[in-house]
Amino acid sequence: MPIIRIEITREGATAAQKAALIRGATTLVADVLGKDPALTFVVIDEVDTGNWGVAGEPVAVLRTRRSAEAG
Amino acid sequence: MPIIRIEITREGATAAQKAALIRGATTLVADVLGKDPALTFVVIDEVDTGNWGVAGEPVAVLRTRRSAEAG
Amino acid sequence: MPIIRIEITREGATAAQKAALIRGATTLVADVLGKDPALTFVVIDEVDTGNWGVAGEPVAVLRTRRSAEAG
Amino acid sequence: MPIIRIEITREGATAAQKAALIRGATTLVADVLGKDPALTFVVIDEVDTGNWGVAGEPVAVLRTRRSAEAG
Amino acid sequence: MPIIRIEITREGATAAQKAALIRGATTLVADVLGKDPALTFVVIDEVDTGNWGVAGEPVAVLRTRRSAEAG
Amino acid sequence: MPIIRIEITREGATAAQKAALIRGATTLVADVLGKDPALTFVVIDEVDTGNWGVAGEPVAVLRTRRSAEAG
Repeated sequence: MPIIRIEITREGATAAQKAALIRGATTLVADVLGKDPALTFVVIDEVDTGNWGVAGEPVAVLRTRRSAEAG
Repeated sequence: MPIIRIEITREGATAAQKAALIRGATTLVADVLGKDPALTFVVIDEVDTGNWGVAGEPVAVLRTRRSAEAG
Repeated sequence: MPIIRIEITREGATAAQKAALIRGATTLVADVLGKDPALTFVVIDEVDTGNWGVAGEPVAVLRTRRSAEAG
Repeated sequence: MPIIRIEITREGATAAQKAALIRGATTLVADVLGKDPALTFVVIDEVDTGNWGVAGEPVAVLRTRRSAEAG
Repeated sequence: MPIIRIEITREGATAAQKAALIRGATTLVADVLGKDPALTFVVIDEVDTGNWGVAGEPVAVLRTRRSAEAG
Repeated sequence: MPIIRIEITREGATAAQKAALIRGATTLVADVLGKDPALTFVVIDEVDTGNWGVAGEPVAVLRTRRSAEAG
């Protein structure tokens, strides 16, 4: 009965990538803990880059600055 | 001061259903634990079916397969 | 496949009360949304009163002050 | 390595306000616990007012009633 | 910067198993999404079986009944 | 009605530090968003260092290695 929550910034993860995350996470807890896939929930939360902060700044700001520097 | 979080797949829950979930969850903790409704928060998280996995697959994929089989 | 999380301060909820919360929450989403109880998870998080704050203060401090006032 | 999650109703928080929340939360755990900002995540969850309940009712309903009373 | 949360019932997961979960989850998001392991947090929540419900009952009750039946 | 969740590794945060986190987080959302402290919840989750991973390893392992190197 595990619940696995994968939180990532909303930056274009495709349906195929999300399916791979779900498959991989389910396999991980089955392999390591013997959990039943039929009772394993995986929830992917995608968060806007303006709503996720690291080092005191929104990721949106960090991304903008980085691409400007790479200009 | 309870916080009750209800996570469901985003599959058309109506405003009336969400109001019923909020009312029911608040009543539940008031009845069982004597909690004050004025200080009871209920948060409903709706998750896209492509972002929710069970049995190693996205619900979106499971729903599509099932409706194809029911074809 | 709902996940219902009930967060409460750790103030002596009994096993029977927790069973009632689990039963009630499962029934609520079955009645309102037609969800399958066999695929409904309920998780109860109990939080120490020193780790839960309201109105800017830990509940532990509020409880102590109230019982002193009620002295 | 703290994770600070700030959940608010979706009622128009601006990018500047969210940046201020991220900066403030990061500074708080640095000042109080000496945590490294570079390894401090802040996640802001904005929840629709129809999905957030207090006192047994959706905030959306409470807001509507209040503005009608203030009418 | 992903945050991966793995919630399991508290049923004796060893330090080695938890290390394997952390390693596997970090590798998963690195492989699928190219995320930097140095900025990937994995949090394992272990929940008492009396605090986790499925099919309307606490896992603790289900486990007891099952071992009695297997008696 | 904000909910602010502060997740930290369980490494000896004192009652006074937790009170400071609660006070600071409540003030932050009051100052930035005008939120009512009486309806602001702050929850501090302390996670064992064996249950928190970064860079693919449990913090417990990283701490042990670092103190051995600093030996």
